Amino acid sequence: MSEEFKIVWAEPLTDFCQKVFEKMGIPAKDAFTTAEVLVLADLRGIDSHGVARLRRYYTGLKSGVMVPRPEMKIVHETPISALLDGGAALGQVAGKRGMEIAIEKALKNGAGFVAVRNSNHYGIAGYYSLMALKQDLIGISLTNSDVYVVPTFGREVMLGTNPISVTVPAMGERPFVLDMSTAVATLGKLEVYSRMAKKLPLGWVTDEKGWSCDDPTRVIANIRSKAGGGILPLGGEGEEFGGHKGYGLDVLVDILCGVLSGSGYLNLLYPKTPEGKPLPSLVAHFFGALRVDYFRSVEEFKRDMDDLIRRLKSSAKAEGQQRIYIHGEKEFELEERYRKEGIPLYYKVYEDLKAIGAEVGVTF
Amino acid sequence: MSEEFKIVWAEPLTDFCQKVFEKMGIPAKDAFTTAEVLVLADLRGIDSHGVARLRRYYTGLKSGVMVPRPEMKIVHETPISALLDGGAALGQVAGKRGMEIAIEKALKNGAGFVAVRNSNHYGIAGYYSLMALKQDLIGISLTNSDVYVVPTFGREVMLGTNPISVTVPAMGERPFVLDMSTAVATLGKLEVYSRMAKKLPLGWVTDEKGWSCDDPTRVIANIRSKAGGGILPLGGEGEEFGGHKGYGLDVLVDILCGVLSGSGYLNLLYPKTPEGKPLPSLVAHFFGALRVDYFRSVEEFKRDMDDLIRRLKSSAKAEGQQRIYIHGEKEFELEERYRKEGIPLYYKVYEDLKAIGAEVGVTF
Repeated sequence: MSEEFKIVWAEPLTDFCQKVFEKMGIPAKDAFTTAEVLVLADLRGIDSHGVARLRRYYTGLKSGVMVPRPEMKIVHETPISALLDGGAALGQVAGKRGMEIAIEKALKNGAGFVAVRNSNHYGIAGYYSLMALKQDLIGISLTNSDVYVVPTFGREVMLGTNPISVTVPAMGERPFVLDMSTAVATLGKLEVYSRMAKKLPLGWVTDEKGWSCDDPTRVIANIRSKAGGGILPLGGEGEEFGGHKGYGLDVLVDILCGVLSGSGYLNLLYPKTPEGKPLPSLVAHFFGALRVDYFRSVEEFKRDMDDLIRRLKSSAKAEGQQRIYIHGEKEFELEERYRKEGIPLYYKVYEDLKAIGAEVGVTF
Repeated sequence: MSEEFKIVWAEPLTDFCQKVFEKMGIPAKDAFTTAEVLVLADLRGIDSHGVARLRRYYTGLKSGVMVPRPEMKIVHETPISALLDGGAALGQVAGKRGMEIAIEKALKNGAGFVAVRNSNHYGIAGYYSLMALKQDLIGISLTNSDVYVVPTFGREVMLGTNPISVTVPAMGERPFVLDMSTAVATLGKLEVYSRMAKKLPLGWVTDEKGWSCDDPTRVIANIRSKAGGGILPLGGEGEEFGGHKGYGLDVLVDILCGVLSGSGYLNLLYPKTPEGKPLPSLVAHFFGALRVDYFRSVEEFKRDMDDLIRRLKSSAKAEGQQRIYIHGEKEFELEERYRKEGIPLYYKVYEDLKAIGAEVGVTF
């Protein structure tokens, strides 16, 4: 492991984050959940959504736009659905509650769908959909997010990288865990290229004019200042490689989250006062859980899932390739390794955590 | 309009197809449904799934692998779900019944999900999801299909172009109608390039070795003979542009259709006898319908849908672009035009329809 990294273990890291959140006035249980979501991202190799984001939550809580003891309430409820108001909670807290409700309803009535409004960034989408697997349910987790993505033929960032996560249980094989942004790349990846002064592959982003561009630093600055251009939807520029499909999936996620919950959508997630002071965010989520045995026996279903997975994995590889992956597989393997060998944290992140710890009085 | 095309009107075309199906022993109502699905594809510009496919169904019915008067039955049922056995019906007949059940259940209990097994190719996915809009429901339609697509890092066609269609009602604006294959391109598009002796964009397909390739004729032949290579998932080759995401969506559709229904999946959709004689197909579908008012008022939801659509459409265009589209918009405009001006059918298709008509005794 290079000198750039500091190895840390999941348990003390979670413990540290939990204590920081508790110092910010968050009840122990919610503080643990939030810490757990962050550390799971690092364990699964999605470090852009891991503890590197602690400062963002710390700042949000300090400024008052995120609420440590929110009044979450169910606004509307049926046997298979709920609309949950997050009350400006941390996204992890509102998200976990939302998915719990979806699971409860699915266990009782076959399906549960929960739209969550007035929430915040909830970390990795997969944390919530993974919760469904313990009960052999199919799990769904979607969220809208800050706008980095331009619509097909557009030049203005109007959409988040709005992820889709769906989990499906298997028997002997690892479960199928799709957890994908609907954009061709993430801002985190652009930042890696920028740090390495590397050019981007053409088809990831566009410049101020809405044209293909390979300069990560310029595009990141443009996204931040809303100068025009941004990340392209999955499928890339225009329609030649199906960019309109990624754009469609991106909009669909925003509809099921932002519109169905009556929260913010498109570029309306982060409102401000006329003086430019941030107001509580209008981020929204959508969770779903579906019982397999409402269609066929869980045993038979999981046996066929194993068969599907094995057939895919053992199918012929492209020349030069050794392996065909199932979704979630790489992340499960990384998680096992990092739990054993520790998580490699960037020194910069490690130092930042220590600084936050010093500010609130928690030793790392 | 070029000499290559013959203009035909939707109504007599539907009528002709219905009569052909009736001659094949299909009851009038089912014959009309099937004809309607085919002609709607032509009206919406998806001519690869239109009346050009009439011969496929004609042949399937003649050979006995498609059944004109199937015994469709509900194998398992709950207030929000059903497993429907298509009994080797035409996919359009089993599909419409499946979506009707999903809609009935959603109207009564908020959500309805129907998995359909032992069916056939059902035409355009959008036909079924569009049915949900009349009742202000969110509609979902998925199907698996014959294998043309290679998994990421694979060289063997293991997946269909498995489409996802989701419809969402709006108020003054046209509804959102996503209807997309999960592959970067369709076989129909490859055939167009092949006919025009045009090279394919790199990133659409791979050759026998699993490497990027621009020769449509060779790839079509390889797909048909299963010689290796095929169409790439949405996102293209490898993981650089998110090909693993399209691959994941493609697998997800197969899970919800083939595995959840206990039908065929991957390359198991078209079984044969040991002598190579085709057996009834194991194509499977998944339909869903969801009530908006189980979350919030339909009026408010549709008003926000209009707002989302208008904000997207009026956002800044990339230089050189005049218009940002919402999903379904192009197809609605084409449908309006073709209903007024007639559908341009390829002469080859027109002549084939006439030939089928002559065989069964129906004048076109």
